[in-house]
Amino acid sequence: MTLDDLPTPALVLDRGKLQRNARRLSERIPRGVRLRPHFKTAKSIEVARIASHGRPMAATVSTLKEAEHLHSHGVTDITYAVGVAPQKLPRAADLVRAGCDLKLIADDAEVAATISSTAASLGVAFGVYAEVDVDRHRAGVTPLCETLPRIAEALADRPGSRFMGVLTHAGESYGCTDEESLRAAAEEERAGAVAAAERLGKAGFTCPEVSVGSSPTALHAESFNGVTEVRAGVYLMWDLVQSNLGLCPLEDIAVSVLGTVIGQQRDRGWLILDAGGHALSKDRGTAAQAKDYLFGQVTSLSGEPIPGWLVSKANQEHGIVESFGATPIDFNRYPIGSRLRILPNHACATSACHDRYAVVDGDQQVLAKWPRINGW
Amino acid sequence: MTLDDLPTPALVLDRGKLQRNARRLSERIPRGVRLRPHFKTAKSIEVARIASHGRPMAATVSTLKEAEHLHSHGVTDITYAVGVAPQKLPRAADLVRAGCDLKLIADDAEVAATISSTAASLGVAFGVYAEVDVDRHRAGVTPLCETLPRIAEALADRPGSRFMGVLTHAGESYGCTDEESLRAAAEEERAGAVAAAERLGKAGFTCPEVSVGSSPTALHAESFNGVTEVRAGVYLMWDLVQSNLGLCPLEDIAVSVLGTVIGQQRDRGWLILDAGGHALSKDRGTAAQAKDYLFGQVTSLSGEPIPGWLVSKANQEHGIVESFGATPIDFNRYPIGSRLRILPNHACATSACHDRYAVVDGDQQVLAKWPRINGW
Repeated sequence: MTLDDLPTPALVLDRGKLQRNARRLSERIPRGVRLRPHFKTAKSIEVARIASHGRPMAATVSTLKEAEHLHSHGVTDITYAVGVAPQKLPRAADLVRAGCDLKLIADDAEVAATISSTAASLGVAFGVYAEVDVDRHRAGVTPLCETLPRIAEALADRPGSRFMGVLTHAGESYGCTDEESLRAAAEEERAGAVAAAERLGKAGFTCPEVSVGSSPTALHAESFNGVTEVRAGVYLMWDLVQSNLGLCPLEDIAVSVLGTVIGQQRDRGWLILDAGGHALSKDRGTAAQAKDYLFGQVTSLSGEPIPGWLVSKANQEHGIVESFGATPIDFNRYPIGSRLRILPNHACATSACHDRYAVVDGDQQVLAKWPRINGW
Repeated sequence: MTLDDLPTPALVLDRGKLQRNARRLSERIPRGVRLRPHFKTAKSIEVARIASHGRPMAATVSTLKEAEHLHSHGVTDITYAVGVAPQKLPRAADLVRAGCDLKLIADDAEVAATISSTAASLGVAFGVYAEVDVDRHRAGVTPLCETLPRIAEALADRPGSRFMGVLTHAGESYGCTDEESLRAAAEEERAGAVAAAERLGKAGFTCPEVSVGSSPTALHAESFNGVTEVRAGVYLMWDLVQSNLGLCPLEDIAVSVLGTVIGQQRDRGWLILDAGGHALSKDRGTAAQAKDYLFGQVTSLSGEPIPGWLVSKANQEHGIVESFGATPIDFNRYPIGSRLRILPNHACATSACHDRYAVVDGDQQVLAKWPRINGW
């Protein structure tokens, strides 16, 4: 089977690119620092195996469903890096009971106490990190906040919890515009996490782990001093947002959406694909970046970006391709029934529209289909 | 089970609102004009049964998967209202062979001929409409275009096709800002479709069907003269985009996303929900409208909109709730573990993030779970 035989729209994953992307980050992480890839983008055991290079795997997940998927395939060392709703604790406890070393995070002392007491009453124990906020991005407590030692206190040496240390995510790094600010974001992340750990240490709490992570900072950190593990996810796939950050050339983007031409509007210069908003997502992550790719960059069937060809509109099942560059739309070359591929603004959002990958490796041969574990 | 027992995030559908929305449009369509609801939003046989009020059903779909789902539940009269990729014809033919009266659309004479000849070679026949463009929205040929009679010619009286007539969709009506322009869009849609049919009639092609449709125009048309059927879909659910168009009050929106508070950032006035971009979609359909709801309007667990409370940021698994109105975020009333609901910008996009509905009827009792048929 080749890309020409696949039903469209379809999500295509280039295994060779994935392998190179995985290696590039792995090789950057110093010995003694653990890489704990985040599977929120990939949601696939097959991708996880490549990301861990066949070695025992430390994984990060964004849903309990991802954790259950990885655990059902033998992964036991998993961090669920989204604040847990207390109602999810029984389900998380089931994983621990089944042999998974599942770690949670907390940025609230009461919630930390609830995790610990609920786990104890369920007869399990969770490792729990204090979630630290280094850049006012989203969740977490600041390194100097009064709540931080109270979280450690609620977790340390309890029957239902082990205090793991601190965990942070420099989410604001996605908004950086140059290498210097990326390096600064990485150092801010490292220094903030280490400061939080040192503060807890002085307050008498052993802090075995200092976990940092985002793909931009992992690739730009000049020091990992004091850091015990790095989490990152989108580096496995890359996308147009990350390319705009200078993290990868378009050629490294490992996922794309395959679409078939279902219409031509020649007077308007439009090709219409059967890959619309439901296949691409409506994520407009590049809208405020240096280069706005609208709803995605068009490539040929073999994967070469066609300069200036973008998906300009995305209705539910219609994606409209227009040329904004020097190469006009070639209607004779792309008749109805012909195929193109689309590089995504945001790999996580676009991939989530699909329940499997069609796997290729450099050419158009489809080597495998790998399921994706969407939802919750 | 109540909404408090559901795992979150979850898609909630209020059956009473759905029933009232269905009735409102049905009652507006004159006798003798067929309503052919579009199931691209609902993707559910249960919703289809409500939309057809228990009577024999004429359905519109946006994917063959929706068609297969409806047909497996006994629906036989189905129009696939997206230009068909020629590669999908064998799968479409399987439906016909299984007893489904599946109708296709074409806006290109060569494609029309391909449909007809492929169907004949597969031993089936499709009904096929010529897709007409009345407002330069997307696909279709203009009523006076030379291609229109050539499409009819390629389809009429062939072993593989029956020429059904014309079909159009006034997609630009979604951009209207007042009732007058909505009425004008409806009349433009009707008049364009009727003109196309009359032109074909004069050229000697019998045009049994004149199919128009969009929820805004269906609710604003002052005349259905010459129209044989109306297609509409989002009217079953409504959403914030449609509310901004004046088509429904917020109280009529039948779908919402249930989320659990997983964090509080009190100094910034943020609640953090476990319903982020993957549960809400990144559709920003209200961005350019009179009222921008950001990533969605927050309601209480019982469904009452809380004025000014919006989802201001949507990361993958984090939705940030902020107050932009007179009622500040009440952190004591909404501790971690408490729940809120979110009305969607765009019901189609948000619903597509979920593989089932949790069905309620006015209160918080969960009466049923209805599967949704996402994907292709």
